[in-house]
Amino acid sequence: MSDLKLPSRSDDFSEWYNELVLRAELADYAPVRGCMIVRPYGWALWENIQQSLDRSFKATGHVNAAFPLLIPRSFIEKEKSHVEGFSPELAVVTHGGGEELEEPLVVRPTSETIIGHSFAKWIQSYRDLPLLINQWNSVVRWEMRTKLFLRTTEFFWQEGHTAHATLEEAEAETRQMLEIYRDFAVKDAAIPVIPGRKSESERFAGADQTYSIEAMMGDGKALQSGTSHNLGQNFSRAFEIRYLDKNGELQHCWTTSWGLSTRFIGAIIMVHGDDQGLILPPRLAPYQAVIVPIYKSDEEKAQVIQAAQKIKAELVSSQIRVILDDREGASPGFKFNDWEMRGVPLRVEIGPKDVQKNTVVLARRDKPGREGKSFIPQAGVIDAVKQALDTIQKALYERALNFRESNTADPKDYKEFQSAVEKGFACSFWCGSSECEKSIKEETKATLRCIPIDQPGDSGVCIYCGKPAGEKAYFAKAY
Amino acid sequence: MSDLKLPSRSDDFSEWYNELVLRAELADYAPVRGCMIVRPYGWALWENIQQSLDRSFKATGHVNAAFPLLIPRSFIEKEKSHVEGFSPELAVVTHGGGEELEEPLVVRPTSETIIGHSFAKWIQSYRDLPLLINQWNSVVRWEMRTKLFLRTTEFFWQEGHTAHATLEEAEAETRQMLEIYRDFAVKDAAIPVIPGRKSESERFAGADQTYSIEAMMGDGKALQSGTSHNLGQNFSRAFEIRYLDKNGELQHCWTTSWGLSTRFIGAIIMVHGDDQGLILPPRLAPYQAVIVPIYKSDEEKAQVIQAAQKIKAELVSSQIRVILDDREGASPGFKFNDWEMRGVPLRVEIGPKDVQKNTVVLARRDKPGREGKSFIPQAGVIDAVKQALDTIQKALYERALNFRESNTADPKDYKEFQSAVEKGFACSFWCGSSECEKSIKEETKATLRCIPIDQPGDSGVCIYCGKPAGEKAYFAKAY
Repeated sequence: MSDLKLPSRSDDFSEWYNELVLRAELADYAPVRGCMIVRPYGWALWENIQQSLDRSFKATGHVNAAFPLLIPRSFIEKEKSHVEGFSPELAVVTHGGGEELEEPLVVRPTSETIIGHSFAKWIQSYRDLPLLINQWNSVVRWEMRTKLFLRTTEFFWQEGHTAHATLEEAEAETRQMLEIYRDFAVKDAAIPVIPGRKSESERFAGADQTYSIEAMMGDGKALQSGTSHNLGQNFSRAFEIRYLDKNGELQHCWTTSWGLSTRFIGAIIMVHGDDQGLILPPRLAPYQAVIVPIYKSDEEKAQVIQAAQKIKAELVSSQIRVILDDREGASPGFKFNDWEMRGVPLRVEIGPKDVQKNTVVLARRDKPGREGKSFIPQAGVIDAVKQALDTIQKALYERALNFRESNTADPKDYKEFQSAVEKGFACSFWCGSSECEKSIKEETKATLRCIPIDQPGDSGVCIYCGKPAGEKAYFAKAY
Repeated sequence: MSDLKLPSRSDDFSEWYNELVLRAELADYAPVRGCMIVRPYGWALWENIQQSLDRSFKATGHVNAAFPLLIPRSFIEKEKSHVEGFSPELAVVTHGGGEELEEPLVVRPTSETIIGHSFAKWIQSYRDLPLLINQWNSVVRWEMRTKLFLRTTEFFWQEGHTAHATLEEAEAETRQMLEIYRDFAVKDAAIPVIPGRKSESERFAGADQTYSIEAMMGDGKALQSGTSHNLGQNFSRAFEIRYLDKNGELQHCWTTSWGLSTRFIGAIIMVHGDDQGLILPPRLAPYQAVIVPIYKSDEEKAQVIQAAQKIKAELVSSQIRVILDDREGASPGFKFNDWEMRGVPLRVEIGPKDVQKNTVVLARRDKPGREGKSFIPQAGVIDAVKQALDTIQKALYERALNFRESNTADPKDYKEFQSAVEKGFACSFWCGSSECEKSIKEETKATLRCIPIDQPGDSGVCIYCGKPAGEKAYFAKAY
């Protein structure tokens, strides 16, 4: 960990991000081009994300399983739009055990095909439905331009795959999982998101309908932060996933898939971070609080460390994730900077005067200087820390929401639209034509992020062509 | 789930195993030769194994991380014995993104090399040591003869990798992790194991010393159930993992690695299972208890289901993993068989008479018939279930230990040795020569499983050559 300052967020957002990921030791570049190493601090954050989502998946009846990493290439070719979407991105195993394989295998880019193959075997009758499966793993997609967490050749995610008896049930599942992602983003990551439907051109390769949650990053660009697909009968026809209905007739299933990846860590960094480093939302932070002891003499040290250990024990017993930074040879100032870089939401300072007065200082990561400090009696430390963490969680959300709102425009005309997407989101009526969408993209580099679930209810005219339009859509430049 | 009986365990242990894995829905064959699909019930068992081990790893200061799946082929070639051991088993990616790669990549067979590369980058000084990292993932080794869980081309595991300042610390870490595996096997899986040192010929490719825990399966064969390696300076020299010591001198680190895989599920099946199916140890079982309601009329059904739901809620609130089998159209007898196949340790039966008398019947999976049944008042159900689960956990361990002891011999001579390894383990003095070990293997098919940590303390003569020998070793046929 170097003492050098980060590039400024406002000067060079992209370099600020790259440096921060490395300096906070979230991830590192791998020796294979485009791959990443998720370092322990980054993985601890991912484990907290996993636990939260996994609880929600299980509470809604899903179970975890594990399907193979290697998929016969012919499987990918069975669903027409799937192969078109994925074949340029495949990593191909041609040799195994010293010999050339009869059929090449691909390293999974996603698992609809191999799971479809199993579903066809496991599902016989309507009694076997719905089948609700998830897996946590990594996938490989050969990417040309990569950026840690945001776009890497190998990335970590969960992929849910379900089969249903009817279109309505598959659609309800697709929407339920979108809602789980929305709820997670808002409540745990303190990130406001727009849940909505993708346009045809932005759909998952093989889906009838794709939904996503879209978040605004600190530079005004959008990040697709989770997706949920209604796959219709596309994969059930390609893989013959069929069931006998109550009347004894053979029917094709309706399937869905949905995923959220380590990309989401990129969103947390870019939404909340500042020039001092990360700011992690308390509900996901590996450490919610750091205790920094302050002393000069050995006598002071003995007293301060003893008091700090007592406070740590109390916080641990209240299930607060806390670390006591008792590193030798590092100054309190160095420690403050170090933990600010790593985004620990709350700092607990304790010095000789605090020991005398039975107090501690709490310092909020999200509010620099005096404004974020409070002086509290040691006896009330547990409640004060809990309350501070709640306050920080809410404040981060409010700040992100305000930022998004002040950078989202409802432009009067295409000229206003063009300047709106230079700094943030434009929410505009769109006629539904792919041509308008394509022209907008070519002229402004903004893509149609989603058609939000929440619509104004009225109608208007397309921001591009001026024809009547029944729905609004969000447009933005995106990662 | 079919109603057909399993092959008998004593008639055909191998077929019994294969059928049981499929029928209990633990795993399924994948469309890629040698790979497996871990089905939800098998994965739930693995998740419980993961949680237990992960807690122990973290309690001893280890942190999780994630390193890439793809490794440059040249990395594997940097450590001489490592490449000899692993190159026949590699799956090789030669194409990515539609183009042939300049350097082929291998799908990781294990991660010493790619982690060594990172360690070299991250470790600067003695202050960075020890570095204690673990990862949960899957690896690929091209296997010729495969068997679900026991030997598959892709398997799931954890791999720990650590770096230390001294040989002593690396050795202490290696032994500590062996002890964590032993403790887990005994306490959670109810499997007695022999912790010991491997002979040179059975060492991990690249290790100075390999330790393992060895368990006896229900057919008397051994299964290596977890390994811990002291890698000496082999990888630190190959990858230049160095640190500045307190005197400012550059030193090579001492590294270790250790792993336990889904193979362990095979041990649980083969140690505890019987002709009716699995018997899962309560501490790892996905469901510790199943409630089966018994009724004929609709009126009975209403009463019984209501009582069953109340009992389920009580057990859930006491953190007991319980399922209420309220499937329509399946008889109680069918349900009994079904859950016996799946090895749920305890069955809670409740019928109309139980409702009247405020009682339930508990039936132990490990004791068939009347002997395993007890009739208890509903008011005491939580304590009775907890106690029964503890009793079953202990009984499974005792039974497995008795079985191992009665199938382990201390043969007088080589002739006795030869018949001993036909049915179980032989624990015999061994002179330490690879020639004796090799001859024994050729003549009896028994391999040297380990030189146990616990030695008798005396000395004797080698069971094969008759020369003086200071240590005993376990020999057995093995999976």
